[in-house]
Amino acid sequence: MKIQLGPSDILFPIPSALIVSGSFEKPNIITIAWIGIMGSLPPVVGISLKKSRYSLDSIRNAKEFTVNIPSADKFKEVDYCGIVSGRKRDKFIDINFTPLRSAKIDAPIIKECPFNMECVVIKEVELGEWVLFLGEIVETYVDEDKINISNKNKIDIAKVNPLVYCATVREYWELGNKLGDGFHAGKEILNKLKRENSSSVDE
Amino acid sequence: MKIQLGPSDILFPIPSALIVSGSFEKPNIITIAWIGIMGSLPPVVGISLKKSRYSLDSIRNAKEFTVNIPSADKFKEVDYCGIVSGRKRDKFIDINFTPLRSAKIDAPIIKECPFNMECVVIKEVELGEWVLFLGEIVETYVDEDKINISNKNKIDIAKVNPLVYCATVREYWELGNKLGDGFHAGKEILNKLKRENSSSVDE
Repeated sequence: MKIQLGPSDILFPIPSALIVSGSFEKPNIITIAWIGIMGSLPPVVGISLKKSRYSLDSIRNAKEFTVNIPSADKFKEVDYCGIVSGRKRDKFIDINFTPLRSAKIDAPIIKECPFNMECVVIKEVELGEWVLFLGEIVETYVDEDKINISNKNKIDIAKVNPLVYCATVREYWELGNKLGDGFHAGKEILNKLKRENSSSVDE
Repeated sequence: MKIQLGPSDILFPIPSALIVSGSFEKPNIITIAWIGIMGSLPPVVGISLKKSRYSLDSIRNAKEFTVNIPSADKFKEVDYCGIVSGRKRDKFIDINFTPLRSAKIDAPIIKECPFNMECVVIKEVELGEWVLFLGEIVETYVDEDKINISNKNKIDIAKVNPLVYCATVREYWELGNKLGDGFHAGKEILNKLKRENSSSVDE
């Protein structure tokens, strides 16, 4: 049995990302759960902010921001950056985070976040009281010690230990176990169907 | 030390959502990781598809789709729906999933997914080889047995057990432990700052 909950912005699991805007000298952090990859060629990320947010004007004017994915042990710092406005506080100082110079834009990345992106705004879409910024991802970073050198230099998700958020339900979680690999796990079903069917099953 | 990875569409943790388009009689499922909430008033979700995908025309023409969040134990079925095209196969039959009639649109929701949304396309944005559909969320559903009646009928995330995806790294994960509550966990830092500072720290 399914229960109808009405129109709602519930979604999980999603990132609780730290967005940095402004300059290296005067950066600001906000916490954003309204985020997602929106294109691959070129790589584009979408972030959506309420119009009342302090960061709106600096992203709109500078047309750039960084996305910083925190590890699970930083959930209190992440939540703090969602509660407190940059109008009143320097959140980098409050939570002891360190801005690092970006390679291609002015807004800095956050040292304490293991994965980071530099983004240049290519489009802005008004959605009621929210503004969606579509940012081309011009650079990404991962902490050196989160790379698995014995596995083709792949990012080691267990070491990154990314924070998970469940929106509107308002809960922070951490990851448990890896289940399988994308573009691979489904081949078991595909192969079973190929064996069972006389007709061919193509990918 | 941070390593530059170049422009990339790596992002984690994100949902690996099943998008249903078409009619109740002839629905199709695709797996989409390019998804995020993009507004709250009204609630809006963004999903992005490569232009070559079979589902593109049916979403574009009918201007509607459903979002279905699978539980972690369905990762093979989810991956299968990302590997195989609806041009060639009826994926509902292949993976033994059941379409259920939606309340407000024609495209059905998936019974076997514990959380579902009905969406009406309000805007389309071209992003290179991808098309972003912004859908107003007109209805949401959760399985009755995933509701915690002893906690204000809140969705019980542990019971939903949502599948987690790490994009471009291409890994499926499940959740581990709950860490804390949103708009609450950060108050510990806020209160500490209030005690330390003579100047007031406002939210």
